[in-house]
Amino acid sequence: MLNREHFEDLDKTDPLTSFYEEFDLPEGIVYLDGNSLGPLPKKSKERARQVVEQEWGRDLIKSWNKAGWFHMGERIGDKIGGLIGADPGEVIACDNTSINLFKVLSLALDMRADRRKILMEGSNFPTDNYVAQGLTKHLGYGHEVIFAERDQLIDAITEDVAVVSLVHVHYKTGRIMDVKAVMEKARSVGALVVWDLCHSAGAVPVELNDWKADFAVGCGYKYLNGGPGAPSFVYVAKRHQGRFRQPLDGWWGHKAPFDFTRDYEPAEDIWQMMTGTQPILSMSLLEEGVDQMTRADMGLIREKSKRMGDLFIQLVDEKLEGYGFEIVSPRDAEERGSQVAMTHEYGYPVVQALIERNIIGDFRAPDILRFGFGPLYTRYVNIWDMVETLQDVMQKNLWNLPEYQAKAAVT
Amino acid sequence: MLNREHFEDLDKTDPLTSFYEEFDLPEGIVYLDGNSLGPLPKKSKERARQVVEQEWGRDLIKSWNKAGWFHMGERIGDKIGGLIGADPGEVIACDNTSINLFKVLSLALDMRADRRKILMEGSNFPTDNYVAQGLTKHLGYGHEVIFAERDQLIDAITEDVAVVSLVHVHYKTGRIMDVKAVMEKARSVGALVVWDLCHSAGAVPVELNDWKADFAVGCGYKYLNGGPGAPSFVYVAKRHQGRFRQPLDGWWGHKAPFDFTRDYEPAEDIWQMMTGTQPILSMSLLEEGVDQMTRADMGLIREKSKRMGDLFIQLVDEKLEGYGFEIVSPRDAEERGSQVAMTHEYGYPVVQALIERNIIGDFRAPDILRFGFGPLYTRYVNIWDMVETLQDVMQKNLWNLPEYQAKAAVT
Repeated sequence: MLNREHFEDLDKTDPLTSFYEEFDLPEGIVYLDGNSLGPLPKKSKERARQVVEQEWGRDLIKSWNKAGWFHMGERIGDKIGGLIGADPGEVIACDNTSINLFKVLSLALDMRADRRKILMEGSNFPTDNYVAQGLTKHLGYGHEVIFAERDQLIDAITEDVAVVSLVHVHYKTGRIMDVKAVMEKARSVGALVVWDLCHSAGAVPVELNDWKADFAVGCGYKYLNGGPGAPSFVYVAKRHQGRFRQPLDGWWGHKAPFDFTRDYEPAEDIWQMMTGTQPILSMSLLEEGVDQMTRADMGLIREKSKRMGDLFIQLVDEKLEGYGFEIVSPRDAEERGSQVAMTHEYGYPVVQALIERNIIGDFRAPDILRFGFGPLYTRYVNIWDMVETLQDVMQKNLWNLPEYQAKAAVT
Repeated sequence: MLNREHFEDLDKTDPLTSFYEEFDLPEGIVYLDGNSLGPLPKKSKERARQVVEQEWGRDLIKSWNKAGWFHMGERIGDKIGGLIGADPGEVIACDNTSINLFKVLSLALDMRADRRKILMEGSNFPTDNYVAQGLTKHLGYGHEVIFAERDQLIDAITEDVAVVSLVHVHYKTGRIMDVKAVMEKARSVGALVVWDLCHSAGAVPVELNDWKADFAVGCGYKYLNGGPGAPSFVYVAKRHQGRFRQPLDGWWGHKAPFDFTRDYEPAEDIWQMMTGTQPILSMSLLEEGVDQMTRADMGLIREKSKRMGDLFIQLVDEKLEGYGFEIVSPRDAEERGSQVAMTHEYGYPVVQALIERNIIGDFRAPDILRFGFGPLYTRYVNIWDMVETLQDVMQKNLWNLPEYQAKAAVT
């Protein structure tokens, strides 16, 4: 049987310990929701002040050049690229994930103009499906979005599929998709692939160029700790750049924005993925989070993340048997991202009861409890404390109080 | 002849004086570029700290509800709506102007499915034209973007035009479009109209519902003082809502985002203009700028703005004759937004010489010098000092120094 000392010992020898102090997490909180919103790096406080008070307040429009505002998307993109196995000039930060997905799906359909199918996993994070549905409806050329679940996925990648759009790490279960199998099958039938890296970047090794990936998108506010609603990033493999044009043309994607020409001339590099002016404050804090992540060793992050997940599952098995929880994440760490999800019939009030006890996880309808691990700030003891608190909640029936039932009813 | 005392007296009796102190403008700077980037309201410094340190740092994911992050776009939208003659529920803040224009142009083409033409002013701010070009190319149904300049514009609004997309206040000349003439002609031929309010909102009276407007977009970082790259806003008249669907479907535009359904079901109100997660830090500072603007009287803003423009032009006539400047903004204040533009053969080095002397205006290729007035922070004496400095620069040939020539060459 595990005990708390075991977790304390792991913290003492954790090679990532030095990062703990770089975050401004509230005292007494066990934060296991970095897979939804990463916590605040202390440096981001200073950066926010600098951007608002110095760059905007003092330097005003000069900052477009002096503070590098205008090219921040490329700069951050290159840094993120280094985290996901892309070369400089293949990634740019801008807009949000849904909009960037619209851009790359449009590109993919243009590149496979003789095909009409977009293949998605039905249980994708919904926005991915919605974007594909909006795009095909908008085009009106008889494109269709077809769905397959994991077991049927490889078989569903056929010669009439233009593009396969998949989440790399599943937002609910944390399951990692079998990239190799998808890429091989897609290549064999000439389909393009878009990877959604929202739950991967900063948490799980990603090697886009090794994968011979085509396109990818991802968000900045989860494991990259870029702040609430931080802008997204988009990857376009070098070999696909400059040949087709994403449809959200705007002046920032023009080859010479300040020429103010009447007609659009697309940039021929990753800059073409830009559309309009970017939210500089949010971009700046994204950069701060990314900078921090580039100083960490992804191998160590991954090792710690896997171990945390394994220990979490072991503790759930040991301490929560008979309370109606079912682990829905893969038990094999190799197949699991940096979160563990389980189902419970009364998941919502249970999560509420944990939150009241300073354990922050989240709930996803209809019955999923998600707990994410950010190896730069999550301590091993957090896992112990979380499961022990949950055991207490279940033993004493603390989740089944009238107050939580009322909250459940209004949500 | 005017003199500095005259300007000082105007400042003394300016009913907007109390707003001066609400901005954090650097000492000694004459800032006449709020038409590009509005200056920092002091309250925005505090708000930035609150959002970063308290809402993100302390409250983490709770802030989506507790701090109202999720519905901030509607809240800010309603406030902006109050500034531009829209009802609650007709405006929402999100994304950037180019992307919002893509949404409303798409809607307009859907609503006029039997027509193929988008009419733009060729000298529109270029991104407007680019968005229309990208959209028509993407659709590939033989839509075309046709251009007309001001003199031919009304005649060009014909029965085969689906939508007319115009800037209300021209970004270079500051000229205000004749809204009544455009709306009447458009209505008579069944064309829809999109107004780009980037240089209008917060500076010039706009009455969208009185105009019987269809759609509008605008940006938050100019006269709304929302900070660099602040998100944009989009207006859809109530009568057009819920009937058609903008194509950038994402989970934020779904009627029930947290149901996580597989298939998209559009919200039937302004929320449908949402796509993905918004950059909360940048949104928050936009709200702060908008809040400030809602406390000001638009009638007073407009009166001061007109008077400043008139005085600027009068001073240019008096003090800069023979130096090769030509006013290209309307001399009639009724036809002019909150800026005055003039041309000069060596506009770029002249603007640089002014900047070196703490007078901040800007330059737009090929030969335009722009000077904007933000009635909440621009003082009358700023106008005097600016023209006097420019006179000095021209008299002493200070713009024609090797250092400015070198800068001109590298830009």
